Amino acid sequence: MVPCLGFPPSVAAAPQPCLAPLEWEGRTVEYDHGTGRNTLAAVSYDAQNQRIRVLEQKTGHTPCKKFFEYIYLFKSGVLFQIEEITKQCAKIALTEAWDPYDIPLNSTYEDQYFIGGPGDMIEVQEWSDRKPARKNEAWVGVYTLKDCYPVQETYTKNSSVTTSTRFFDLQVGISDPGVFDPPSTCQSALTEKMTSDC
Amino acid sequence: MVPCLGFPPSVAAAPQPCLAPLEWEGRTVEYDHGTGRNTLAAVSYDAQNQRIRVLEQKTGHTPCKKFFEYIYLFKSGVLFQIEEITKQCAKIALTEAWDPYDIPLNSTYEDQYFIGGPGDMIEVQEWSDRKPARKNEAWVGVYTLKDCYPVQETYTKNSSVTTSTRFFDLQVGISDPGVFDPPSTCQSALTEKMTSDC
Repeated sequence: MVPCLGFPPSVAAAPQPCLAPLEWEGRTVEYDHGTGRNTLAAVSYDAQNQRIRVLEQKTGHTPCKKFFEYIYLFKSGVLFQIEEITKQCAKIALTEAWDPYDIPLNSTYEDQYFIGGPGDMIEVQEWSDRKPARKNEAWVGVYTLKDCYPVQETYTKNSSVTTSTRFFDLQVGISDPGVFDPPSTCQSALTEKMTSDC
Repeated sequence: MVPCLGFPPSVAAAPQPCLAPLEWEGRTVEYDHGTGRNTLAAVSYDAQNQRIRVLEQKTGHTPCKKFFEYIYLFKSGVLFQIEEITKQCAKIALTEAWDPYDIPLNSTYEDQYFIGGPGDMIEVQEWSDRKPARKNEAWVGVYTLKDCYPVQETYTKNSSVTTSTRFFDLQVGISDPGVFDPPSTCQSALTEKMTSDC
């Protein structure tokens, strides 16, 4: 079977990580293995300015009634959390480092395969941060081969998966850069994270 | 953005489950949330005759040294387990019912989305066995929209995911039906399942 994509599969030398898009909008589902909960969100991703906006979305079968918008500004070290209905806002120090949705240059090539089948498929590569001296990987990323779109990212701690995030409906670019500006309610913001009701 | 696929998205009435291919060969990765282990396998799937052959594959970072082949013959209610190197064979009664890789007709439509992005994507639908009277689903299946190839199946028990299986490199049809015939070592088979060493 000859794939319909215009390049020869697995012919080249050692695969090199592709360069993931620096700006996109799309949807994500994060599965938290600890709580067993799926979180669906609309995401705007801006790697140039190290900022991410996450708008939680209601699904048909969630017990939660509160939904939040999150604006992560890694360059300023600040996270804004905005409750969807009241617009109540919390401004929280961001302690995590910026971790882009991409394949770091020193990553380990794991696998290449098609999702789907003939006539209805995409080719993806799987990369991890596994090192020969270390038994297990802490991160596995699946990216499309042609345009390097993120498909899935999995994080592991002590051999147990902690979160898996799947990416959907990606569009390159940011249609409205205003989504990264916190609303006016954030001028007098709470200083502690608001808790979910579910 | 106009998708490159030749059909209008989300225009029709209530979506109907597509008919998944009845015969295919491909690869699967099953993630067991209980043990935290990924099992990679080459799979031959024959729904007409209700039989599945699973050939476990070594990955770069598994602690296991033993690998097994499994031949599930649901019509006969028999599972053969064959150790890859010694060909030692166990013949075990199959207690589970045949559960095909498809979307049952009474399934609940959950979502439709693209994996990947413009120029490098497939469109998939998500279905589950969720019912209005029941809070949680026990099965979620993701299938490609055009040719109904399985992409991912997730099983849940008491609100916790038990296994997630992802499907790769699918080819329609069975190139060698002989893979469903147990080897001669199965004529004098063990009657208990052999345990893994990992």
